[in-house]
Amino acid sequence: MKIPKEIVSVLKKEKVFLIATHISPDGDALGSALALSSALESAGKEVYVYNKDSVPPFYRFLPGYKKVISSLKRTLSKDPVLILLDCNSPDRAALEDYSFRKSIVIDHHETENDFGDIRWVVPAVAATGLMVFYLLKAIGAALNGDIARNLYTAIAVDTGTFRYSNTSAEVLKAGAELIEAGADPAAIAECLFERWEKNRFELLVMTLNNLEIKNDVAMMHITKKMFEKTDTTAEDTENFSNLPRTIRSVKISALFRELGNGAWKASLRSKGNVNVAKIAELFGGGGHKNAAGFRIEGSLNAAKRKLLLAAGKTGTDR
Amino acid sequence: MKIPKEIVSVLKKEKVFLIATHISPDGDALGSALALSSALESAGKEVYVYNKDSVPPFYRFLPGYKKVISSLKRTLSKDPVLILLDCNSPDRAALEDYSFRKSIVIDHHETENDFGDIRWVVPAVAATGLMVFYLLKAIGAALNGDIARNLYTAIAVDTGTFRYSNTSAEVLKAGAELIEAGADPAAIAECLFERWEKNRFELLVMTLNNLEIKNDVAMMHITKKMFEKTDTTAEDTENFSNLPRTIRSVKISALFRELGNGAWKASLRSKGNVNVAKIAELFGGGGHKNAAGFRIEGSLNAAKRKLLLAAGKTGTDR
Repeated sequence: MKIPKEIVSVLKKEKVFLIATHISPDGDALGSALALSSALESAGKEVYVYNKDSVPPFYRFLPGYKKVISSLKRTLSKDPVLILLDCNSPDRAALEDYSFRKSIVIDHHETENDFGDIRWVVPAVAATGLMVFYLLKAIGAALNGDIARNLYTAIAVDTGTFRYSNTSAEVLKAGAELIEAGADPAAIAECLFERWEKNRFELLVMTLNNLEIKNDVAMMHITKKMFEKTDTTAEDTENFSNLPRTIRSVKISALFRELGNGAWKASLRSKGNVNVAKIAELFGGGGHKNAAGFRIEGSLNAAKRKLLLAAGKTGTDR
Repeated sequence: MKIPKEIVSVLKKEKVFLIATHISPDGDALGSALALSSALESAGKEVYVYNKDSVPPFYRFLPGYKKVISSLKRTLSKDPVLILLDCNSPDRAALEDYSFRKSIVIDHHETENDFGDIRWVVPAVAATGLMVFYLLKAIGAALNGDIARNLYTAIAVDTGTFRYSNTSAEVLKAGAELIEAGADPAAIAECLFERWEKNRFELLVMTLNNLEIKNDVAMMHITKKMFEKTDTTAEDTENFSNLPRTIRSVKISALFRELGNGAWKASLRSKGNVNVAKIAELFGGGGHKNAAGFRIEGSLNAAKRKLLLAAGKTGTDR
């Protein structure tokens, strides 16, 4: 992978950095940020890692997660160089009200803006963690155990532990190097997949009980009452919508979550070539081909009917 | 990895081979057998792949699965060299009543016998598929797409797509090479994890509904009635016992399956250092540290009580 020389030169020359990632951060955002900050710190730099939403409990196994700050008060006076990771516009990181004398963007998401003095945005790459992996090589940073664990987690999350279609030989080779540098694949998988609280599992079972499948579309829902009964929140529903994809005939899996005031949030997941972003766009939402979402008002039954209609129109085979 | 020279020399010299794998074959057994048979066929050999139970519907995506025979009638007259894969005693492959002029054993399971003229048994290796991968290199066989898909599946199944503790840098490097040779990780993951029939999923939800957790032991059960109601069989319960491991506090997950005549089959799964083989042995069963099983007679409640008692005795922390 070709690393922009300007990034390497800025990382070497500058002394103070602010690494920021998107709100509702995931493993790729946090792992990438923590790995890059460790490497820069080892090179004697002053580094701040910022996330408006701080680190969800779920990711508090990542080495160095405590250094993530959710306020910029003291940082800005240091006049840092901004490094925006795993997103490519300042508003995604809640930074739209700030300005920086220099900014670098490193991301693998599609983009429609041109923020940043140096932009390195490659949507074809599986994870931002993989870009940071190559960047660290380019600046000659050693992969210590903490860096390896953070980058391995970043890549594991964004490839579904090497199950998604972005998994390539390149991804597995990087994973192998990170294991050699100290990442423990089984320990990371346990942290990612086997640390649910009991009530989250209860909510899942409750949700699975209302699964219905129509025209190859699986639909489940979670009411506010279900959240109350199990003492859970929207954060606990991550990945729920993936489960019905297990069924061979299911091409789209939808989870409706009650927002209150007669509104629902629909999370869509699809298999292979079925494009749910197209469906979400019909309702003013958006996303990627295999994972998208939208907001809809009205009764649950009406919302389901509208989704089925839209899925039929856009065609589940495309 | 060091490949026994004798195996390489027999594979080169001999003309007719019978590759056999264990009954109730899994992805590692079948993938390894099909990959090795392809490579030998490409070298002009006559090869038969035998499995007493033939190929479960679940694995009928493996390239060449149709060549698996479940009868030895015509084969034996050819006086083949036996290659026993992914098991190391003839009875595991339902071959105890036959004898062969020469036999090779290639396996990664623990062993307590000495069957075979040439034995290559390495329990530390993640998958038999990985041993075949190195063997093919040693005999100079090219990795074509079919071989790559079979070996990638073998390794993916036995490492839980790179989540289990047997996942090493070596495993990921082999995976990378297999992708370069034509294996599609996402397509294979879809075949492995997203092709359940609806009734299998119904059985799962039904089973999850009777989950109870006591002293960090999760217990679920499936009665004959539940099988009847969903038109499913024991084969459909593969991996069910893994799911409650998702819960942070659960150290052991047990699934009781009704056998009839007052008997139950218990499947145990555990996390990390908790050794369920020790528990299974108390009931005359056996297995590995994190996956074991036993048969027990009596009522379901009594069986559950006895399991909890045994788990308490052996200690779930060890």
